[in-house]
Amino acid sequence: MSNDQSTTNYRWVGKRTPRPDGVDKVTGRARYGDDMSVPGMLHCKILRSPHAHARIVSIDLSKAKALKGVKAVLTCAEIPDHPLSEPPYAPIINDMHDISRNVMAREKVLYDGHAVAAVAATSERIARAALKLIDVEYEVLPHVLDPLEAAQPGAPILNEDQFTFGDETEPKVPSNLFRSITGKRGDLEAGFAEADLIIEREFISEPVHQGYIEPLACIATTSEDGCVELWTTTQGHFVIRALCAKLLNMELAKIRVTASEIGGGFGGKNTIYGEPVAIRLSQMTGRPVRMVMTRTEVFRASGPTVGSRSKIKMGAKKDGTITAAEVDTWYQAGAFKGAPVGRAVETYFSSYKIANVRATCYDVCVNRPKVAAYRAPGAPMAAFAAEGAINELADRLGIDPIDFRLKNAVGEGDESLMGSKYGQIGLVEVLEKVKSHPHYAAPLGPNQGRGFALGYWMHGGGLSSVSAHLLDDGTVTVATGNPDIGGSRSSMRVMAAEELGIDIELIKPIVADTGSMGYSHLTAGSRTTFATGWAVVNAVREIIDKLRALAAKKWGISVDDVIWESGQAVPKKAGQDRIKPLSLKELAGMATKMGGAIAGHSEINAGGVGAAFSAQLVDVEVDPETGFVTPTRYTVVQDVGRAISPDYVEGQMQGGAVQGIGWALNEAYIYDAEGRLQNTGFLDYRMPVASDVPMIDTVLVEVPNPNHPYGVRGVGEPCLVPAPAAVANAVENAIGRTMSWLPLSPPKILQAIEELKLAAE
Amino acid sequence: MSNDQSTTNYRWVGKRTPRPDGVDKVTGRARYGDDMSVPGMLHCKILRSPHAHARIVSIDLSKAKALKGVKAVLTCAEIPDHPLSEPPYAPIINDMHDISRNVMAREKVLYDGHAVAAVAATSERIARAALKLIDVEYEVLPHVLDPLEAAQPGAPILNEDQFTFGDETEPKVPSNLFRSITGKRGDLEAGFAEADLIIEREFISEPVHQGYIEPLACIATTSEDGCVELWTTTQGHFVIRALCAKLLNMELAKIRVTASEIGGGFGGKNTIYGEPVAIRLSQMTGRPVRMVMTRTEVFRASGPTVGSRSKIKMGAKKDGTITAAEVDTWYQAGAFKGAPVGRAVETYFSSYKIANVRATCYDVCVNRPKVAAYRAPGAPMAAFAAEGAINELADRLGIDPIDFRLKNAVGEGDESLMGSKYGQIGLVEVLEKVKSHPHYAAPLGPNQGRGFALGYWMHGGGLSSVSAHLLDDGTVTVATGNPDIGGSRSSMRVMAAEELGIDIELIKPIVADTGSMGYSHLTAGSRTTFATGWAVVNAVREIIDKLRALAAKKWGISVDDVIWESGQAVPKKAGQDRIKPLSLKELAGMATKMGGAIAGHSEINAGGVGAAFSAQLVDVEVDPETGFVTPTRYTVVQDVGRAISPDYVEGQMQGGAVQGIGWALNEAYIYDAEGRLQNTGFLDYRMPVASDVPMIDTVLVEVPNPNHPYGVRGVGEPCLVPAPAAVANAVENAIGRTMSWLPLSPPKILQAIEELKLAAE
Repeated sequence: MSNDQSTTNYRWVGKRTPRPDGVDKVTGRARYGDDMSVPGMLHCKILRSPHAHARIVSIDLSKAKALKGVKAVLTCAEIPDHPLSEPPYAPIINDMHDISRNVMAREKVLYDGHAVAAVAATSERIARAALKLIDVEYEVLPHVLDPLEAAQPGAPILNEDQFTFGDETEPKVPSNLFRSITGKRGDLEAGFAEADLIIEREFISEPVHQGYIEPLACIATTSEDGCVELWTTTQGHFVIRALCAKLLNMELAKIRVTASEIGGGFGGKNTIYGEPVAIRLSQMTGRPVRMVMTRTEVFRASGPTVGSRSKIKMGAKKDGTITAAEVDTWYQAGAFKGAPVGRAVETYFSSYKIANVRATCYDVCVNRPKVAAYRAPGAPMAAFAAEGAINELADRLGIDPIDFRLKNAVGEGDESLMGSKYGQIGLVEVLEKVKSHPHYAAPLGPNQGRGFALGYWMHGGGLSSVSAHLLDDGTVTVATGNPDIGGSRSSMRVMAAEELGIDIELIKPIVADTGSMGYSHLTAGSRTTFATGWAVVNAVREIIDKLRALAAKKWGISVDDVIWESGQAVPKKAGQDRIKPLSLKELAGMATKMGGAIAGHSEINAGGVGAAFSAQLVDVEVDPETGFVTPTRYTVVQDVGRAISPDYVEGQMQGGAVQGIGWALNEAYIYDAEGRLQNTGFLDYRMPVASDVPMIDTVLVEVPNPNHPYGVRGVGEPCLVPAPAAVANAVENAIGRTMSWLPLSPPKILQAIEELKLAAE
Repeated sequence: MSNDQSTTNYRWVGKRTPRPDGVDKVTGRARYGDDMSVPGMLHCKILRSPHAHARIVSIDLSKAKALKGVKAVLTCAEIPDHPLSEPPYAPIINDMHDISRNVMAREKVLYDGHAVAAVAATSERIARAALKLIDVEYEVLPHVLDPLEAAQPGAPILNEDQFTFGDETEPKVPSNLFRSITGKRGDLEAGFAEADLIIEREFISEPVHQGYIEPLACIATTSEDGCVELWTTTQGHFVIRALCAKLLNMELAKIRVTASEIGGGFGGKNTIYGEPVAIRLSQMTGRPVRMVMTRTEVFRASGPTVGSRSKIKMGAKKDGTITAAEVDTWYQAGAFKGAPVGRAVETYFSSYKIANVRATCYDVCVNRPKVAAYRAPGAPMAAFAAEGAINELADRLGIDPIDFRLKNAVGEGDESLMGSKYGQIGLVEVLEKVKSHPHYAAPLGPNQGRGFALGYWMHGGGLSSVSAHLLDDGTVTVATGNPDIGGSRSSMRVMAAEELGIDIELIKPIVADTGSMGYSHLTAGSRTTFATGWAVVNAVREIIDKLRALAAKKWGISVDDVIWESGQAVPKKAGQDRIKPLSLKELAGMATKMGGAIAGHSEINAGGVGAAFSAQLVDVEVDPETGFVTPTRYTVVQDVGRAISPDYVEGQMQGGAVQGIGWALNEAYIYDAEGRLQNTGFLDYRMPVASDVPMIDTVLVEVPNPNHPYGVRGVGEPCLVPAPAAVANAVENAIGRTMSWLPLSPPKILQAIEELKLAAE
């Protein structure tokens, strides 16, 4: 663990400080989604499809309704339908036509686990019993799980009202291929003609689940006047409010959402599943309704990330100059459109200056749960293909992989394929730090290999709101609208303390509900410390200005002659030395006697996001007998802009690497021939546990984002982007051949070793 | 029910609109203090003194602690002690030395019901069982219940460290008389010399309880880092935070208080009782702790209002000019100092111009629960004496009681005895409205009498905070820090709708917790619609300014050229007719695309409070056989400044009158010879129920308070001030003699009738 400290002289920023919610979270005192109960509460259970694809012929609720203790039963008839959204489809991810059908199946079920009905009963036991009394008649249809197959003519069609966007032929034919996004520049033909070496590869990655510890859970309460209160585990209660309101045709102000503590999200808790169902049941019964999903339901019915198939072609000169690159990728969106195809194109070759390039990504529906975001959505699978190809190019040209990347590295002023323009970035610094790291030159043992990959991510900004309140005793509350997932309470507190010049222990970070705070976008997209943190800085600066004015009033001088320094108001002008500075605490005590309570507020729409790069070195050892891969050493080097709370930044980097190890080596959805998910628990869906991973070493490179008051760049997502590629590259090096299909589970490794032996014989 | 509509052309202000929380409150869906549960919660019960006055010799907790299911037991040893506060005693009501001892007795118990120990156990049953296992050894001391007796030398002393403030003699002698407040002007001797008629009277009133429906209840949760969350029924969660923090030596920011719905307060929920006990038990056990008081505990151990004894002397000329007035009043503070003596002096003669006057009120400790505020604290008992004397003066001079008051009425520029200066007031308008009301001239039947009294109250202002948020769909949340007792959600919504020019249904009023909002003082002192409402107006005006700026940006004109009219931005200048106005909803939809979320905030310290006068006419019928008094007609005429929500203003006026009927006719604490309270439930403590009262007619006089944007004056308290005096005056008229000792219960009436018969014989 090392830390490139910048030379700035901060008191709190960059220091290792305790996490405000840490002990509560590890001792179980923090209240999560199902740690709330309300008097008179009913329990909701959801009936789910046993088929991957079927037409719903009829649903008979009569027996379930008759069961004692059952207070309401609903189907899609109780969830408003919405028209298909029209081009240009900007908010596909919030398409109410699709969300309504995902929340509760309408004409058809589209995946194993798709919700078809729900029960509210006085106990969970009764609710479960009632589910068994619901008779659903299905007409089973052929299904398709693979995106390439699903995109072919003649494949089973999931959504008969879906056509390929941009397809101008008539008559239109329903298609699982919804749309594609292409980014390109230069002249591919000329580019490949210039190349001394051209490689072509196919890469496959499987859908993987975020695997958050806490299953989805909520409680909805409805008042007579139609107002709803919702307690839920979410990455963004304002977004949940917006989605529920839109889906249920309600006014925003009539839904008040409180975010519980959240036991992990990683993008998987950005949207709604059971929330509108709980609200509707609450409206139907007039009673509070709790909905808690089981782990099996989480796997069967909540969104994993996309699976992908990529066909990539790259060419380079002997000197290492990449002359051309092209790629086609099919992303499986699950049952409804909305795979992060733009993010794939954005990711592909964005770390490199390539004159001639084209990247196309296809958004294809298959009979799987609708995909959700997962930490850098759309990027790791794109990086797996692109970095895999680049590693092969460098290897075959005999060029050091870092040097190869340095030769082609983008810099300030360059643009990504989706048009993101880079400002001051730390890519070269990151690569050089890897090269000089002891890990890079460390010797390897037998059956060991070393992998490397680079990842790029442009984090989010957008809407965040903050209210900071100075209390009479000089303590401060800082309320935001962002659930704390990865330590944002800490980073908010640190920035507030730094600005105010007081001890962090005097500051209490608060997550406020939607009724008390301005709109705040998701805790997602690596945006929170950047955007919400910026709003915190604005809000406490307003407090400082008010305190300066208070001191000026007290001293009878102009506010312009008062500066704020080390937690106190100080007269600026020479000759005022006899005026004793007034501390924040002193001013706080006077404040309400000289005016109203002292507060600062900020509602911002943060622009000025900065690109971040994460480079990862990993060593693995392959057991040639079993094909089992053990990561033995792992180093993450990342440009973090500035680490407000280094512990949590390192935690993010380590967490990203660990999830990448899971993607690379083990995680996958296993379906039977009927399209039923077979591994619906953590015993069968194999995520890495502590004993599966080495200590993840982290190197924080700090090239500040000049747009942010503290130079923050998003740190949560870049660290996952290159991880699967780096691990796969290490396996390739260990066994001596390319590996292109994740996860690299023991059977695949053994098969590769066998093939190598056969080839050598 | 009539309504003096002002001529202003408001859309919502002054209209009768549904109460946002009404249905929830009457259907039991609203969540009150004990309607919350938290996983792992313990139950707290409090052991209370069976003695009115006793020294605590020892407390043995060992048996209670050993009981299975008991998790913690505490005494005063766990509640921090605080030094005696020093003069000038500004915040007596928040004196931590006293509050600590009231929350948990230390050296002595000072009243029947005084808390001595508390238990947290896994069930209420176990907690109650554990109380019986606590052995307390008491040394019983003589007690005193009457304030005049308690103020005499030789009376049993409650607090040995208490001396009479301002007593300059040495050595000082401990005293139950803590202090007195005097207001005076002119030359009393000369004034009485001028008088044609001088009367002297004594008046007695008993302590009465607020009688809120919901007993006190809370849940406290403590985190490992020392942060506390408290859910409680209160009139001001910010005040509860301040008191708990001060008492427990905690930082303000480390306590987050959420106000439950509140089932009545009337001043009785302005302070702390079980809250710090629940917090300490939560800290000791690491588990959430719920404390719910029974009705018996509420009567025995929470503060009623003061009882009083007054000696009053007044003189007037034949023409009705009051020439002099003097009064001495002893207020019983209960076990600890802090009776509202200043408010008594403020109240006494404040409706009248009297050249020569003195009023003194004494703050005396007695062995009763420490008094708390009760709707116009200190005023109704002062008005009972002053108005009683004035009615007698008018009667004996043969002057109509209204004319008598009109002759002496104060006006703009006059001052109260405590120095409050009247601005524009509606006293004369109120009196004239009474005189012209049909009730005033209506005939009376046999055994019937008509009473009249006038009340004055200067409502509160002070600190309030508001955050209003405009949502994407044009709906608005208006968050305040004030629990809604009497309909403040409605008045906030009405003022916001009026300013914004939109339908009230688009506005959702929210009560925010202490973590999300700036300091907001109590919902008390008739201050909320005035002060918090003012902050609402400020906050939504900030929203309007932002929307004007948004429209200006859209239109490319100066913001100064955009006005806000009927819910839309309109270009002001001639020649811009072609620009189509932009509605709030349209602007809301654009807002976040052109900047951050749109919010308005206000933290104010509202001055400019306005004096309010309530005049009440009441008819009663006395049953000469039983002494039972039936109020048969009641009219309240009050200057309400401006009625934002007339329904709730009328409700306040009616509620004040009803409580006054209770004070006047039935309510009193009954103690046995040992000083033990005998009537600890609503069967024995006789509050008026619906069948005890006539329809209360209300007449709203609207003389706007020029300091407030909508002319608001406080309305909740003035209506109680004259009520006991008016009812007593009606009884006097019915039976034909003066009555000076409340409550006028049947035995007292019968006795008076008997005495009259004897005198006539």
